[in-house]
Amino acid sequence: MSRQEVPAIPDTSPCCPPLVDEALTDETAATLARGFKALGDPVRLRLLSLIASRAGDEVCVCELTDAFTLTGPTISHHLKVLREAGLIDCQRRGTWVYYWIVPARLAALSQLLDVSGATATARP
Amino acid sequence: MSRQEVPAIPDTSPCCPPLVDEALTDETAATLARGFKALGDPVRLRLLSLIASRAGDEVCVCELTDAFTLTGPTISHHLKVLREAGLIDCQRRGTWVYYWIVPARLAALSQLLDVSGATATARP
Repeated sequence: MSRQEVPAIPDTSPCCPPLVDEALTDETAATLARGFKALGDPVRLRLLSLIASRAGDEVCVCELTDAFTLTGPTISHHLKVLREAGLIDCQRRGTWVYYWIVPARLAALSQLLDVSGATATARP
Repeated sequence: MSRQEVPAIPDTSPCCPPLVDEALTDETAATLARGFKALGDPVRLRLLSLIASRAGDEVCVCELTDAFTLTGPTISHHLKVLREAGLIDCQRRGTWVYYWIVPARLAALSQLLDVSGATATARP
């Protein structure tokens, strides 16, 4: 469960200009879509929010499992998807695995969707 | 293809506090995951970026189709997924359908992933 075992997107993902600035290339779209796909599941989104809301601190997998009625293996699967998408990372210590968010990767996805510079045009 | 034909998430989606602020509820996670799932495909992400990079203006479906080697029906399917997720909207005028982004929905997803307030802790 260490970062060596499963290849994940590094937390040095380049930040992307907002969608409103320029059209995406094929390669960039593929990398970013992988992150959004991992977020496209309610359980994974809740898991990520449980980890992220620790304000930079890590969370034991035992606490995450307790927050759901799902089985341990199901939770572990969803955590693996989030990790392989580069959104979280983890370390095993003794019996338990501890998780934390990868701020740079989340920031890159957030920045891409930042349309605050876009004009909200009135539509028919 | 008018907004009456396919139920879509309204563009008044409430903004969500960033993940780092608090854990998501089941209901909020389900609504947000639908948006991220729509973004979890490279073709849809490129389509959205082509529409968004018009800086608030609309884009004819004919231009979008020209930008890909995919068939018209495939492009239309991806546009429908984006629309049903509330990320874009459209209007048919004569032969063509015109698309534009829904800034409020994109902003809600962006804000959720904004971890700029999170502490990037050094990890082992």
